[in-house]
Amino acid sequence: MTRQDAKPAKISASARNEALEPSSPVMTFGRDKPLRLDAGVDLAPFQIAYQTYGTLNAQRSNAVLVCHALTGDQHVASLSPVTGKPGWWENMVGPGRPIDTERYFVICCNVLGGCLGTTGPASIDPGTGEAYGLDLPVITIHDMVRAQSMLLDEMGIESLLTVIGGSMGGMQVLQWAASFPERVFSAIPIATGARHSAQNIAFHEVGRQAIMADPDWRGGRYVAEGVSPRKGLSVARMAAHVTYLSEAALHRKFGRTLQDREAPTFGFDADFQIESYLRHQGMTFVDRFDANSYLYMTRAMDYFDLEADYGGSLANAFAGSSTRFCVMSFTSDWLFPTAESRTIVHGLSAAAANVSFVEIESDKGHDSFLLDEPELFRTIDGFLSAAGRLRGLS
Amino acid sequence: MTRQDAKPAKISASARNEALEPSSPVMTFGRDKPLRLDAGVDLAPFQIAYQTYGTLNAQRSNAVLVCHALTGDQHVASLSPVTGKPGWWENMVGPGRPIDTERYFVICCNVLGGCLGTTGPASIDPGTGEAYGLDLPVITIHDMVRAQSMLLDEMGIESLLTVIGGSMGGMQVLQWAASFPERVFSAIPIATGARHSAQNIAFHEVGRQAIMADPDWRGGRYVAEGVSPRKGLSVARMAAHVTYLSEAALHRKFGRTLQDREAPTFGFDADFQIESYLRHQGMTFVDRFDANSYLYMTRAMDYFDLEADYGGSLANAFAGSSTRFCVMSFTSDWLFPTAESRTIVHGLSAAAANVSFVEIESDKGHDSFLLDEPELFRTIDGFLSAAGRLRGLS
Repeated sequence: MTRQDAKPAKISASARNEALEPSSPVMTFGRDKPLRLDAGVDLAPFQIAYQTYGTLNAQRSNAVLVCHALTGDQHVASLSPVTGKPGWWENMVGPGRPIDTERYFVICCNVLGGCLGTTGPASIDPGTGEAYGLDLPVITIHDMVRAQSMLLDEMGIESLLTVIGGSMGGMQVLQWAASFPERVFSAIPIATGARHSAQNIAFHEVGRQAIMADPDWRGGRYVAEGVSPRKGLSVARMAAHVTYLSEAALHRKFGRTLQDREAPTFGFDADFQIESYLRHQGMTFVDRFDANSYLYMTRAMDYFDLEADYGGSLANAFAGSSTRFCVMSFTSDWLFPTAESRTIVHGLSAAAANVSFVEIESDKGHDSFLLDEPELFRTIDGFLSAAGRLRGLS
Repeated sequence: MTRQDAKPAKISASARNEALEPSSPVMTFGRDKPLRLDAGVDLAPFQIAYQTYGTLNAQRSNAVLVCHALTGDQHVASLSPVTGKPGWWENMVGPGRPIDTERYFVICCNVLGGCLGTTGPASIDPGTGEAYGLDLPVITIHDMVRAQSMLLDEMGIESLLTVIGGSMGGMQVLQWAASFPERVFSAIPIATGARHSAQNIAFHEVGRQAIMADPDWRGGRYVAEGVSPRKGLSVARMAAHVTYLSEAALHRKFGRTLQDREAPTFGFDADFQIESYLRHQGMTFVDRFDANSYLYMTRAMDYFDLEADYGGSLANAFAGSSTRFCVMSFTSDWLFPTAESRTIVHGLSAAAANVSFVEIESDKGHDSFLLDEPELFRTIDGFLSAAGRLRGLS
């Protein structure tokens, strides 16, 4: 394995470029270091694209791993090279922020199966010289976490002060705590679940079918054929985006307000602001995300079921754990409602784990974990500071 | 206008045949009886396909109008000629049912813009000799109701014992009560709202974009070009179908159960039963429904806003009404949550209308109004019987 240092940021590089030659550092693992996937095959070679912020202390005790969600990336607190926009969690991670980069060494990797530089369906299959497409084995949350643990091995980081993430990131947090309890001093799973619900699988399946219905998807071989299933991916994103919000947030933000017009046009243009907004969400998404990666990410979430993986008992997953947990949910999140977090808390409690649980009052839906929610910031700041003190950070 | 009697039922006729030559009776309106649409143009000629059940009494006082939902039709209590399946509300309408066809004369019309014989985008535009496609003006709920009132005029029915319907059917009920209060003795709007919410518009827009993204949609001219946007319409139906259910219902019915397999296949086939079910819902829908009609129906619902139509006050819509209202909602309906029904009730109360309100405990989601819900049946039976007694029915 070799570490390639970051190239100068190519702001607004194409997503395709970032998949092949990411602007962030990359760790490569050769055929001597295969990753055994849950699908039953070895992945080798492969690479992980990541970002770090702050400085690892001499005791190597201040490392924080941030796990990103479905369409996130490693650029948690620095400009996205694809969009040129700020990192996706700059309100949470940075100097003086709850995850204070002046105190902690923050690591964030693009997940396995992603499209920002870590090996995924858009990467070149060394066996064919073409993009993997659907020839990449299906990736699980466990596979993502195993890959991250190999990166940490290479970085010489034995244990993490905390692992934190929301939504699919929260699933990785739970998997980390279950698979590598000795490496996880504390864990903060946010707006997530220990398994993906039938309704969530259903919404994901709608998105996948929208992509696969696009004739430019070409059975996943669109890169080789020089096309892109833009319309299908856009519809998938639109459908998903509605589920990230809440009726209250949509009502407050858009209501039934018309878009740049006084009266309905009696047609099928975007009469309402909400329509215009959704179309924009869909169209901008396809410029930054790979359609096949979207299939892999949604599938990874659908397959996640920690209880099933541990013999039908969530408590088994955390048996004997000394990790400190802070579980968080939002009142208006209907994708991962508080009941899912309570299930996690019950499993942890049954394992006699150290757990605190905070349900945050917010009407902003699932996306709340990415937004300015003072109670979220206060809770994480307090929990992380306490974990740091327990671990002897100054 | 002329009435054509029902042809013998052609069970499993194609949807296209039913749009052009419906198996049910049809009332046609010539150029001498145009329908002034909200879009500002006259529609003429046009036709309404409908079904009736039971017998109109001598006083013409026992007529019940059933208004169907987004993808419903006039075959409320008799076999669908397209699917060969029982009518969509046979548990509610029929001999000995709450809407008892031995006591009431039940009328149900395919709505304007529909695709089961009433004039819609699949009908032939007399100006071109081709299917209207998007050349049909956008239809509103108000337009649907005006067309129904013209049918009742022709049938010699001055006033209805009740108008009843769920979802988009409930919108028609509210519009009937607002537009023709003297013709509506009682009204039963179920699982509906006085306006379509931003979230609901958003989900509709996803469906429309899925249809329009299908290259076989051809700008709405697919009939003339001999193709059909099957994949797009199927995705639209899948997305909508999730919103008709509830997390609890999906969990109980499917959970994370795998489809005919012992373990996940690590692929993109329908591993989970919920995926297989959804794909089936999408595929069977395209055999019975017209894609352009789906655009028109969703648009009609999006445009519905009774408060806005009455100067910003829902009470104005019902001012001076002597109609008796029974408003119903279901606890697990997140498409038209109880709050929407409460808004209707508040508007009616502010207009000093006679209103009762029942929220039914059910975990089956929006679709509850179509399912076996004993409290729904009891409530409607009781309310309708009382209305009948007040009107002097034996």
